[in-house]
Amino acid sequence: MNNQRLILVTNDDGYASKGLAAAIEVARGFGRVVVVAPETPQSGMSQAITMHHPLFLRRVRQEEGVEVYAFSGTPVDCIKMAFDHLLREERIDLVISGINHGSNSAVNILYSGTMGAAIEGSFYGCPAIGLSVDDHSPDADFEAAVFFGRQIVGDLLREQVEMSLCLNVNVPVGKPADLKGIRFCRQNRGFWREEFFRRQDPMGREYFWLTGDFVNTEPDATDTDEWALSHGWVSVVPVHTDLTDYRLLELLDGAFGSTEKE
Amino acid sequence: MNNQRLILVTNDDGYASKGLAAAIEVARGFGRVVVVAPETPQSGMSQAITMHHPLFLRRVRQEEGVEVYAFSGTPVDCIKMAFDHLLREERIDLVISGINHGSNSAVNILYSGTMGAAIEGSFYGCPAIGLSVDDHSPDADFEAAVFFGRQIVGDLLREQVEMSLCLNVNVPVGKPADLKGIRFCRQNRGFWREEFFRRQDPMGREYFWLTGDFVNTEPDATDTDEWALSHGWVSVVPVHTDLTDYRLLELLDGAFGSTEKE
Repeated sequence: MNNQRLILVTNDDGYASKGLAAAIEVARGFGRVVVVAPETPQSGMSQAITMHHPLFLRRVRQEEGVEVYAFSGTPVDCIKMAFDHLLREERIDLVISGINHGSNSAVNILYSGTMGAAIEGSFYGCPAIGLSVDDHSPDADFEAAVFFGRQIVGDLLREQVEMSLCLNVNVPVGKPADLKGIRFCRQNRGFWREEFFRRQDPMGREYFWLTGDFVNTEPDATDTDEWALSHGWVSVVPVHTDLTDYRLLELLDGAFGSTEKE
Repeated sequence: MNNQRLILVTNDDGYASKGLAAAIEVARGFGRVVVVAPETPQSGMSQAITMHHPLFLRRVRQEEGVEVYAFSGTPVDCIKMAFDHLLREERIDLVISGINHGSNSAVNILYSGTMGAAIEGSFYGCPAIGLSVDDHSPDADFEAAVFFGRQIVGDLLREQVEMSLCLNVNVPVGKPADLKGIRFCRQNRGFWREEFFRRQDPMGREYFWLTGDFVNTEPDATDTDEWALSHGWVSVVPVHTDLTDYRLLELLDGAFGSTEKE
């Protein structure tokens, strides 16, 4: 145990969620832990930042080696608060975001507040891990996620990774002994087929509530995170944030060129 | 003018913004226009979706060839509302998101509600364009963005692009005649150096408000959107959403392998 290390923990389910307590369990064996987590649930907040109103920071508790703060913004706001204000004078060695109630495999990474925070953490030049369990229930079992989370964090810290690295880690339902191990994967292709649940409010106004099903367009691709998850593996996808489609860039440049006006 | 085409318009500044009116101007020469835009400003909302509360849809106005709806969610919620409910029985030929007050070049694409909506539109299998002007002011001049927006939309529709295509288009400040033309680019590398503006509220509580400066880590790279914008070009970055870092995937798989438990 190296108490010199500083681990920043956040999530998108809010500072009081069971998954956050599990993330603290993962982190606390590796150093001092500071938590800056959202005051309220922020699922589906992606990489959103709060621009139009002020935010409030509150210290929730301090115990041996763990300080917990609640911040009234998004998961990304929490990361910015930690790096740019609260821990500005310190060196953060690792960011852990999660443990999320619900998987963030495939295209879900784009909507995920958990992964938004992990990506943001990696922007500050340190390794960041988003950890999620494939179970949405508030009392999901985090034992396997804690087990494999510790293994991955241990590997990263032992290898002294100090780069801007972001990993999207998803853990299937099951006890550690039931799972096959860790599998490095690519992001699965697929999309959400959405429906809006429609009802009337007490004033008779129609309201809409988002719901839907994920459609996996490549269920047999064994190198994807979805395949790994559904076959008992912990999926690990290394994440980058250059959204340039280079293949299309070449095509478009060839077809249209850079058109200087006459 | 082909009135058979259906163009969906949204934005992140809200249905009443000047930029939305400019996006309608871009779209209306190409077909029937349906706008589903946020009820309230949603800058910085990234690809966020609303999961924890119901949403309300309101028809704002209908005029010759243009219907405008306000939806109480995020930009991505607006896209889902249009494709999965309002226009479910119709075929949408193109999505235009914007015109945003402020550029979405470089890493800003990740925080941008404008680009979140454009990306979401492309998930439904049609071309989508995010249009932004490098001017945050509420009364920004959109003349050049309308001019070049029409040119790009015209090219896409003439080529009968029907694929899942997403373009991040940013237009510098200036009149059309002052700008050099269109340049296909890659996403610039850089990051935000943030600061929190700190004050006390009327109850004496400290609050934080996000502010910051963008740091361009490759100002001389002539193939980037930032370079194009700062040299008088309209930048066009084709966007993909596979966040897998394939280079790192190969490295990690080599270093750690997929570790089956003993």
